[in-house]
Amino acid sequence: MQTTNQTLELSSVRADINNFLDIYYLSQIERAQELHDDYAQLWQTMYAVHEAGGKRIRPYMMLLAYTAFGGEDLKAVLPTAAALELLHSCMLMHDDIIDRDYIRHGRPNVAGTYRQQYQARTDIDTATHLADSAALLAGDSILSAAYQVVMDSPLPDNQKIRAAKRLGDITFVVAGGELLDTGTVLLPFNKADPLGVAQLKTADYSFVGPLTMGAELAGADEESQQTLREFGTALGIAFQLTDDLIGLFGDPEQVGKPAVSDLQEAKRTFLMREAYARASDDQKKRLDAILGKATITDKELKEVQNILVTCGAKQATEETAHIYSEQARSKVPMLAIEVGPRVQFEELIAMAVKRSK
Amino acid sequence: MQTTNQTLELSSVRADINNFLDIYYLSQIERAQELHDDYAQLWQTMYAVHEAGGKRIRPYMMLLAYTAFGGEDLKAVLPTAAALELLHSCMLMHDDIIDRDYIRHGRPNVAGTYRQQYQARTDIDTATHLADSAALLAGDSILSAAYQVVMDSPLPDNQKIRAAKRLGDITFVVAGGELLDTGTVLLPFNKADPLGVAQLKTADYSFVGPLTMGAELAGADEESQQTLREFGTALGIAFQLTDDLIGLFGDPEQVGKPAVSDLQEAKRTFLMREAYARASDDQKKRLDAILGKATITDKELKEVQNILVTCGAKQATEETAHIYSEQARSKVPMLAIEVGPRVQFEELIAMAVKRSK
Repeated sequence: MQTTNQTLELSSVRADINNFLDIYYLSQIERAQELHDDYAQLWQTMYAVHEAGGKRIRPYMMLLAYTAFGGEDLKAVLPTAAALELLHSCMLMHDDIIDRDYIRHGRPNVAGTYRQQYQARTDIDTATHLADSAALLAGDSILSAAYQVVMDSPLPDNQKIRAAKRLGDITFVVAGGELLDTGTVLLPFNKADPLGVAQLKTADYSFVGPLTMGAELAGADEESQQTLREFGTALGIAFQLTDDLIGLFGDPEQVGKPAVSDLQEAKRTFLMREAYARASDDQKKRLDAILGKATITDKELKEVQNILVTCGAKQATEETAHIYSEQARSKVPMLAIEVGPRVQFEELIAMAVKRSK
Repeated sequence: MQTTNQTLELSSVRADINNFLDIYYLSQIERAQELHDDYAQLWQTMYAVHEAGGKRIRPYMMLLAYTAFGGEDLKAVLPTAAALELLHSCMLMHDDIIDRDYIRHGRPNVAGTYRQQYQARTDIDTATHLADSAALLAGDSILSAAYQVVMDSPLPDNQKIRAAKRLGDITFVVAGGELLDTGTVLLPFNKADPLGVAQLKTADYSFVGPLTMGAELAGADEESQQTLREFGTALGIAFQLTDDLIGLFGDPEQVGKPAVSDLQEAKRTFLMREAYARASDDQKKRLDAILGKATITDKELKEVQNILVTCGAKQATEETAHIYSEQARSKVPMLAIEVGPRVQFEELIAMAVKRSK
């Protein structure tokens, strides 16, 4: 791990995390092989999906906060940072089952890989159910593995326990966030609470959790952790709103999933709630007709995009994202950290909200 | 916890585990409530299913081995024993998703409860999928909770880490066992490996894991742990074979699930593999016609039972279960433990294989 003037580069962290996880996955594949070929194949499939993409932004944020608050033993905390990535792999696999997504990083995910394989041997419904089952079990195995990696790390015992408790807090919150998100589909757009979901599922899970975990392991005081929580909450919501915009208006190649996927799920995003609050009756009728359809054509996608632009929902979402990202920015000077890391917290904001659209 | 002459009664352990988990579930419901009403309801549902039944046999075995090998601080290890029960709740929830079971302990399980609730608001397919999703997330949350309970327990730090690693080993193995079991449905009965599945999914998970965890926390040496592994493996297989018999020939009220449920799933049990190895061509044709049907009548159930008796599969399974239970019995004198616990290991065998049929 290279640090310059107490700063960390994402690319360098990514390389270190990937190196660590390469070795870890290979050891797990070997361990699974001792039980059964089929189990080794499950771990191999998880490894292939892991290798296909991912920014490792959660480990990066954890390590960024750790170094910013004076943590010095990067080697000892690296496995714990990687554990956040393993937990995230579980969440992606289980989230994909819930969303019936079989593609991740532009290629088949765990369930997608198994579905292809099972389809040769049985009908599509059975193949899908068995593939979902394999992904379910893969997620369980890797969720538990996240804890194992912390336990097997070189951290002192009391730090391992602290990290594991934090991992538990993060998991507790994200499961709640996912549950709300899942149930939201039964609510009308104006009853959904997209910011509440974003708070739990994105801000607490992906931002506040990793940041405060790093700060705590570095010994940061409660006040600093509180400021970090406020920073992470605002940034996480800004990120989610941006993500919803990118999902619909971005380049599907870069996003890694089809632009219509949120529409097919009729996802209760902030963007859509704004649309229903602002659109004309005719526009709402069209949205009602299109959202939730199993297949959505390019023409329908363009129509929805057009409605979101003309009714002002796109702009309102962009502005709200901006307000939250500025709120996050206002917290940075309050963090008791050096200039180098401070610049990187600023860059984190830029990364979260100015992604390619 | 009451101990008499270093022995532990199941009923007493059960009461202690239930007391501990009552308090734990209530605190988790409260904690979830701080995030959202719906999340509190998920924990409430998990608590209701937990309360509806379960022998707490895994915590019992863990504590039995702990006391047998000289462990003295039962209060400190009790939460870790309870963690095995939380892990088991996760496995039941996820297993039920895989098996499409909506009943547990004779009443709706987590998915079953949500399905009833969602059905009032949407079509049955969507309701089922959303209910499965809720149970999936419930399982994730409670799997992670198992680790939390260990971390928050009064064990010394190094013991917590040891227990968490063991919990990880157990989870790793059971996920593999479940995967094999899941994929087995695509194999013909004579290619399935029911004993291999029973080894991972039942023996290693439910017997070897808890027993060696307790022994390790008590400081038992490697040789004793190895003997325990052999004991647990044999007993676990005996248990599984008995369980398959009870599932089909037992009283559904006592078993807590319909007698036809293994038949509907066309579960590749040892019993069925024996049937296919022994039945006449006509009998096999009838089995082929009945197994895997979505609805199986009482008449068909009786017909299958009759085939299993007349072809000798039932008897062969009973005999094999007996061989394994005797193998387990032969290990008991090799355990370096006192007379009191020794009797209880004998009773454990009786409990596992002489359940009401």
